[in-house]
Amino acid sequence: MAIITFQFKNGTHITAEAVVGANLLNLARDYNVAIDAPCSGNASCGKCRVQLMEGDLDSPRTLHISEEEYAQGWRLACVSKVCGDAKILVPDIAFAYMSRMKVADLSSGEEIAIFDQTVSDLKEAGIEFENDLRLIPVTMSEPTLDDTMPDNERLLWALEAATGVDDKKISMNFQVLKNLSQVMREGNYQVQCVTTTHGEGLRILNVLPGDTETKICGLAIDIGTTTVTGVLVDMQTGKILEKASSGNGQIRFGADVINRIIESNRPGGRKRLQKAILEETLNPMIARMCKAAGIPVGWIYRVCIAGNTTMNHLLMGVYADPVRTEPYIPTFFHTSAVKAGDLGLYAAPDARVIVAPNIGSYVGGDITAGTLASSVWTKETFSLFVDLGTNGELVFGNSDFLMSCACSAGPAFEGGDISCGMRATDGAIEACTIDKETMEPTFKIVGEPGQKPVGLCGSGIIDVICELFRCGIINAKGIFVREGKRVRHNIHGMGSYVLAYKEEAASVKDIEITEVDIDNFIRAKGAIFSAINIMVSSLDFDVSMIDDIYVAGGIGSGINMKNAVMIGMFPDVELSKFHYIGNSSLSGAYTMLLSNQAEAKVQELASGMTYMELSTNPFYMDEFVAACFLPHTNASLFPTVAEAMAE
Amino acid sequence: MAIITFQFKNGTHITAEAVVGANLLNLARDYNVAIDAPCSGNASCGKCRVQLMEGDLDSPRTLHISEEEYAQGWRLACVSKVCGDAKILVPDIAFAYMSRMKVADLSSGEEIAIFDQTVSDLKEAGIEFENDLRLIPVTMSEPTLDDTMPDNERLLWALEAATGVDDKKISMNFQVLKNLSQVMREGNYQVQCVTTTHGEGLRILNVLPGDTETKICGLAIDIGTTTVTGVLVDMQTGKILEKASSGNGQIRFGADVINRIIESNRPGGRKRLQKAILEETLNPMIARMCKAAGIPVGWIYRVCIAGNTTMNHLLMGVYADPVRTEPYIPTFFHTSAVKAGDLGLYAAPDARVIVAPNIGSYVGGDITAGTLASSVWTKETFSLFVDLGTNGELVFGNSDFLMSCACSAGPAFEGGDISCGMRATDGAIEACTIDKETMEPTFKIVGEPGQKPVGLCGSGIIDVICELFRCGIINAKGIFVREGKRVRHNIHGMGSYVLAYKEEAASVKDIEITEVDIDNFIRAKGAIFSAINIMVSSLDFDVSMIDDIYVAGGIGSGINMKNAVMIGMFPDVELSKFHYIGNSSLSGAYTMLLSNQAEAKVQELASGMTYMELSTNPFYMDEFVAACFLPHTNASLFPTVAEAMAE
Repeated sequence: MAIITFQFKNGTHITAEAVVGANLLNLARDYNVAIDAPCSGNASCGKCRVQLMEGDLDSPRTLHISEEEYAQGWRLACVSKVCGDAKILVPDIAFAYMSRMKVADLSSGEEIAIFDQTVSDLKEAGIEFENDLRLIPVTMSEPTLDDTMPDNERLLWALEAATGVDDKKISMNFQVLKNLSQVMREGNYQVQCVTTTHGEGLRILNVLPGDTETKICGLAIDIGTTTVTGVLVDMQTGKILEKASSGNGQIRFGADVINRIIESNRPGGRKRLQKAILEETLNPMIARMCKAAGIPVGWIYRVCIAGNTTMNHLLMGVYADPVRTEPYIPTFFHTSAVKAGDLGLYAAPDARVIVAPNIGSYVGGDITAGTLASSVWTKETFSLFVDLGTNGELVFGNSDFLMSCACSAGPAFEGGDISCGMRATDGAIEACTIDKETMEPTFKIVGEPGQKPVGLCGSGIIDVICELFRCGIINAKGIFVREGKRVRHNIHGMGSYVLAYKEEAASVKDIEITEVDIDNFIRAKGAIFSAINIMVSSLDFDVSMIDDIYVAGGIGSGINMKNAVMIGMFPDVELSKFHYIGNSSLSGAYTMLLSNQAEAKVQELASGMTYMELSTNPFYMDEFVAACFLPHTNASLFPTVAEAMAE
Repeated sequence: MAIITFQFKNGTHITAEAVVGANLLNLARDYNVAIDAPCSGNASCGKCRVQLMEGDLDSPRTLHISEEEYAQGWRLACVSKVCGDAKILVPDIAFAYMSRMKVADLSSGEEIAIFDQTVSDLKEAGIEFENDLRLIPVTMSEPTLDDTMPDNERLLWALEAATGVDDKKISMNFQVLKNLSQVMREGNYQVQCVTTTHGEGLRILNVLPGDTETKICGLAIDIGTTTVTGVLVDMQTGKILEKASSGNGQIRFGADVINRIIESNRPGGRKRLQKAILEETLNPMIARMCKAAGIPVGWIYRVCIAGNTTMNHLLMGVYADPVRTEPYIPTFFHTSAVKAGDLGLYAAPDARVIVAPNIGSYVGGDITAGTLASSVWTKETFSLFVDLGTNGELVFGNSDFLMSCACSAGPAFEGGDISCGMRATDGAIEACTIDKETMEPTFKIVGEPGQKPVGLCGSGIIDVICELFRCGIINAKGIFVREGKRVRHNIHGMGSYVLAYKEEAASVKDIEITEVDIDNFIRAKGAIFSAINIMVSSLDFDVSMIDDIYVAGGIGSGINMKNAVMIGMFPDVELSKFHYIGNSSLSGAYTMLLSNQAEAKVQELASGMTYMELSTNPFYMDEFVAACFLPHTNASLFPTVAEAMAE
């Protein structure tokens, strides 16, 4: 056995034992060392760089590592094999990601306002905020030698007396049975039952001593491919008790759903991916929220989860391979009656886990829940709902019809496929302006004041490309056409713009954006715009007829709508028609959690929603190619951009 | 850390690591070393003897260890603390018990005959042998880009077409969902569904590729306090595929239900006891049966368990303390809808686990299932059903009424409370005659031919006491009144009879039966007889009016009815009225497994059965004292015994 020490910049380290020949990336995964590997260890993305400090690794030099870097010890973890004791430096980008795993504070007024707005929009649309959880106080007579009825029957009789519901129609999970006798005696035969309706009867979810001060709580969770966010809710008042977010622990196994599915099909993969989301992401997050709120996890009696189709499959350990291969068939759209105890999710074992329904392999519960939260379905006017997550999903329609599609924009919006791209964690450039004269950039950087830049996140990339285009540094094809201090070309003639030199950055190399990056991003935004255009056109609409555009997604929070229009990502409509609605998947799940009618409405929206498969659309490729320009080959689609550029 | 080596006589050993101060019995339990401790480590029974071979133990000498034995290294494990490395010899009695943990062969013709007889009796009484498990072949169309219905909906539609059951009324557990896509593709969209009725609809328990040769199996289990037995059954033919028995792994934590409950209330105790029965007893037993039958455990779709009230509570991890303290209230009699997956029992996760209902704290599912299997409830004539397990339970009645009671006979019938007592494992004397002239004994011993005696099991004790009484060696009070080579008295004047000298036995000391043993046993048989007498008398019957006596229980298999009457354990009725019906708990569970009507009948019998609490009966103590003689203080109750003694 060899000893591998993973060293972090903050001075901490993790020691791992490995057999000779072990893959370094897998070893890191086993020991929960976060090394960014968006391509899931296929040696294609070059993100899993580590630096060998002592000892040796059996590791070839790849295209992603220069000879000089190789000499300095830089290696790709995914192609490195253990060949003896070694000390490995895990660089900052991974560390920044690790710090992102902590529960983040989402309790800003802005965040709360989005939830409140969603509830008030739905109420206006006629949705009642009622659920079927109840707290019922029950008093029983004490057993004696002449009255030896077993405890569960004694409780059911008393509950029948308290509620009028026939005791034959009241049931309880055997998990409740486990401590029933203790609770009844502790409460001196006065207890309180947490119940939910169950067919025509009642189901007892918990029994507590009569004098315990308790709460009926619920949990809404958005499982994003990249980020998981959740709120712990008081079900009686609707109040958000705690909020948390965390990286999706599955990210170690690939940045996008396709790589996750591939990983899930490797031996033991499904268990690994389920464990990563359940045991390593959701349960710690729930535990921390409950601890902060001062309640046991067993007081969570209803859970609502919104995630994309793949996330839903992997959460439940369901075989997902047909999702990624033609004809793209998921195992399920809708699943009923999953209990927290079935999954091992921290909550009352009998708590119902409501999973927002999928409507296709690439339009999942995050979109159906998000559609509820958006106002698309409530109005007669026509709205577009765009969710920019790791993938891009669109819903277009009104109160009469809804159509949806998904486009494989790729991971560019979250920093994948971009050489200095990263997720919106500490050190990410999230906004940027460039001085047209000096060509010098100014940044807004995620993290504490004074944080040095590490890379570019999605909203930053939009700004940088828009600014480079606006300043005439790149042309409509994304080619560098202006010389300057920060513009350089490599030996192959590929142009790039240096956002921050190594010395200015918290990185091991210069932070730059290259023509390849810009090309990747243009294809991503082209995918989004062409999807919008095709879907809207297929209904004989044109984009100018869209009344409102609701933009959602974690990625979108820092997005500059004007810049996004400028580069041709969104249709050129009045800026007042754009509404940023935050994490609509989470706010949708929150309303489904609180309201049975909202839950039913999502099912209704999902079954009524038409799914348009873009990959088989004969016009898609032409549209896509036409959209791969700044802003578009058809300039008439972007009149205000043309105007602005003319200035 | 100290290293403790547990050495067995067969040359094998188990090495354990322990902290200094650790209790030796607990250590042995942790490492699955079977040391007999019927009193659950209370230093009262003196059964957990071990011999210190090397090193040292911090262990006081107790009453159960002579000074000479102490010098030889004999210690009680339950009062011994680790104080450094040591080698401990675990004597034969424990090893004999360990060997009992293996799957035993129960496939004798006699055994099968008992199951067949039970089925034929129940059929005669009008019970139909039908259950609701079905194997349904289903053919689906292959998905295409134009037909992207998710797999679960595709299956439900096809199943509706195959069965006529509305697809909205067909459901499946998410465990079935997990591999559904794989199975559908493996079977080329031809599958077979294992279903059970579920309300007005169907529940899918498993889906297999269409061309897989499969079986629909079920499992019936009797969970005895001492021994667990089970049968694996083909649900379509009723054929018993495999049978197995095993010691109940909980025995490490106490021989009787009271000590188990006490242990279960110690920290972590409920988990420990549940694990001992589920993971250490049932699951290995099921795995071995399935392996022998060549089927995966997932082909078990229905499970029926019969056990006493405490066993049922501990199996489900339910708090059981109120069962043992006045007013003796169990948490449940009847429990519905427990799934194998909830318990972690080896079977299809959604397989229903039917638990035969309890009717009181001391009359449990073993008795209600056993009552079904006996013919008591089918006849107009009056029958008595006696189950001699670790406790004694009685049911008396006919087709119009049933009354039951339990008596705390104590563990004497299984060798507890008897100095050389043991369970009916290898080396147990199970039958005995004594020559009236020479006073020399002749034995029948459990085990291979040539097996030397280790101790006395229940049926052997009955024989020995009966023979000592018949030969005039002891009087009606169990006092030694005749001198002889094998009769001796200790310094306190206590008499005993040496069944086998150390040299003749596979034991570390002489095998003898003492006046204290005989007194303990007389109190046990007195409890049984007085319970019978009180229950029958309370209905204005007398014991001579009993038409049939059905004797059941593992303990009873070797029982000599004539001797049992002779010592006043059973009423003095014609020997032809006695019927040994074997393990009626298991045969009852077997019928409940195969037949929905049998399952319903047990529920009906249970709810109609009156429970008589003996501990509060004002006559019980007098009756009990009167029965504590051989055969009874009222000789007129045993006319044939009086006759025989007169000879």
